[in-house]
Amino acid sequence: MEPNNYRVPGFLANGVHAGIKTDGRPDLSLLYSTRPAAAAGVFTTNCFKAAPVLIDMERIRTGEAQAVIANSGVANAATGAEGLADARAVSRAASGELGIPDELVLVASTGVIGHRLPLGKIVEGVKGLVAGLHEDGIPAAEAGIMTTDRFPKIVSRKGLIGSKEVTLCGIAKGAGMIEPHMATMLAFVMTDADIEPEVLNVVFRQAAGGSFNAVTVDGCMSTNDTAIILANGLAGNPRLKRGSHDLGRFGGMLSSLMVELARELVRDGEGATKVIEIAVEEAKTLRDAQRVAYAIANSNLVKTAFFGGDPNWGRIIAAAGAAGVPLPAEKVRLFLEDVPVFSGGRGVAGREQELAEIMKRTQIRVRLELGMGRRSWTVFASDLSFDYVKINAHYHT
Amino acid sequence: MEPNNYRVPGFLANGVHAGIKTDGRPDLSLLYSTRPAAAAGVFTTNCFKAAPVLIDMERIRTGEAQAVIANSGVANAATGAEGLADARAVSRAASGELGIPDELVLVASTGVIGHRLPLGKIVEGVKGLVAGLHEDGIPAAEAGIMTTDRFPKIVSRKGLIGSKEVTLCGIAKGAGMIEPHMATMLAFVMTDADIEPEVLNVVFRQAAGGSFNAVTVDGCMSTNDTAIILANGLAGNPRLKRGSHDLGRFGGMLSSLMVELARELVRDGEGATKVIEIAVEEAKTLRDAQRVAYAIANSNLVKTAFFGGDPNWGRIIAAAGAAGVPLPAEKVRLFLEDVPVFSGGRGVAGREQELAEIMKRTQIRVRLELGMGRRSWTVFASDLSFDYVKINAHYHT
Repeated sequence: MEPNNYRVPGFLANGVHAGIKTDGRPDLSLLYSTRPAAAAGVFTTNCFKAAPVLIDMERIRTGEAQAVIANSGVANAATGAEGLADARAVSRAASGELGIPDELVLVASTGVIGHRLPLGKIVEGVKGLVAGLHEDGIPAAEAGIMTTDRFPKIVSRKGLIGSKEVTLCGIAKGAGMIEPHMATMLAFVMTDADIEPEVLNVVFRQAAGGSFNAVTVDGCMSTNDTAIILANGLAGNPRLKRGSHDLGRFGGMLSSLMVELARELVRDGEGATKVIEIAVEEAKTLRDAQRVAYAIANSNLVKTAFFGGDPNWGRIIAAAGAAGVPLPAEKVRLFLEDVPVFSGGRGVAGREQELAEIMKRTQIRVRLELGMGRRSWTVFASDLSFDYVKINAHYHT
Repeated sequence: MEPNNYRVPGFLANGVHAGIKTDGRPDLSLLYSTRPAAAAGVFTTNCFKAAPVLIDMERIRTGEAQAVIANSGVANAATGAEGLADARAVSRAASGELGIPDELVLVASTGVIGHRLPLGKIVEGVKGLVAGLHEDGIPAAEAGIMTTDRFPKIVSRKGLIGSKEVTLCGIAKGAGMIEPHMATMLAFVMTDADIEPEVLNVVFRQAAGGSFNAVTVDGCMSTNDTAIILANGLAGNPRLKRGSHDLGRFGGMLSSLMVELARELVRDGEGATKVIEIAVEEAKTLRDAQRVAYAIANSNLVKTAFFGGDPNWGRIIAAAGAAGVPLPAEKVRLFLEDVPVFSGGRGVAGREQELAEIMKRTQIRVRLELGMGRRSWTVFASDLSFDYVKINAHYHT
């Protein structure tokens, strides 16, 4: 990793081992903007939202934040009023040490559900965390939010906005319990762009829709899904407002960054050996396209077939047909990459050799044309392997 | 197996190896009533219904049938017009050999989707199949419909209806692609009860709702789900009609038989090591209870936790909270067997030892009280093991 790739003007970051994880890996991270930043966030729609999610949803309404403190190892979910008090105490430790107003701190947690945070260790760890903040600290912060992730997920973009260079950098953690709806497990994007908070909120939600909300590892939505963006304005670009000329350009950079982060999440899905792109086209409604795409993406039989490298396309058809969307069996067409495998209500013969070759790849595109309309949706999914079972049968509570 | 346990007056059965499976196991079965019987069926709601399903749905409208011919190894699904012609040819081979009207034959298939039936082998096999029909042939018929099933599933009931002894016997095959909606993969029930066809239809659908429609192995609904009942009236009981005195008793016997068959399906789910009973109570609507129960039952994270024997109840809460039903986090209560684990928005401390013991069992009851109303639903689910992945990554197309 070249450190300079992951610098964003006006942002400092760090990650340390505070003792939440028992194995000595980093478990406490801080992202800090040297001045208050415009802020937006999208959060899990799970009914059992973790304590830090509840706090952030409240605080982010102001459209302003200056720091995010995040821990891995314990999710601080299903912890009741005590969990809320713990998350507030973490925030106060950070704001006190940073010398900023407490309400400008956002909090995030990931890890086991139902356990209390080890507050003493975290408060103690905050000192070193703040003392070690530096402009090349984003990779360290990423390390501190990883759980079963096999590799770090850091993506950056640079581009001109009104003659000023604008930088974006995002980090994410994923691996399991990944079918975000409004966010992924944890993702944080920092940018020096100058943008109005309400506009930031709109473009961030839009980018999340096509990125974090279009991937699945195991169809399981977490209690802690949190995606936050901080924009501190230090680039000095003409302020991005609704309808302003450069907003589309900024939105494009942001979307591109978030799509890349989301795909990295799938590639690093627990036990994943393959990334499967499932494009459902010619649906009557967007909702129909999404339902069919997710039905395929979350079918254990489809996922194990891809893991096994078996072109068992009947499972894709069966999963699509059970999605709850009435499909015209005669009109539906299925392709693996560009090879037709199902058309006119039956399999297409004679392509077995090509299909066997395609199934050996680590990235495979599935395309299903429904023949009903013009809406489409694409989901990126991982396969289902022995390692998924191994990781999740033995993940310790 | 004591043969006499599986005799139903007036029914003959058999199963043979016709050569559809390559390993020499039985793959072609016949159930035959010596006289035309009242018949009812429930079928998959998958949009890509297999050819035999389409034929049966048409034929069973008369409320009468005399034979069911079923094969394993090839599902005859996604086979277009040729598949329909194949299924009709199988029926004609059976009706010709039996000397009965073709429209009194029902057909069923299970196995790989997208392959044509080996018609020559089946037509050839029908001769021996019919020649070997006998009153103790039900276990042989069961053997002929098994695919990845590890053990046969045969259940019988006897009881008095109006001073006459009535017998019921059902067989089923399951293992994978099991989340029936209106039926399971294949299940056939034979009875000598005398019952009006319309009434049979009503009680059979009702029994299916609480049995086959309340189990899941992998959340995948098949293209071939078929459950059929034949009632030949040879018991000589007072004919069961709408509102007749003994209808409730017959319905109870039938439900009890089908619930047992359904639970056997889960116990024999692909790779299953445990049966998990998930009871969702105090829901506002039945639909809400079902959605939450299935969300838990089909969560890979919940299923792997049970496989690993880890009392990771946070995954149950997370799955329930993501079911799409608004839940009041503070009111929800979760129990493993009778041990409370979540209440008032947080985990219940100090019961870890009891939970660890419970998780070692092979049958575990999960109870979730939503605190919203009075409706409930119970689903039986299997866990997710290495063997599920192994079986399905290598199931040959």
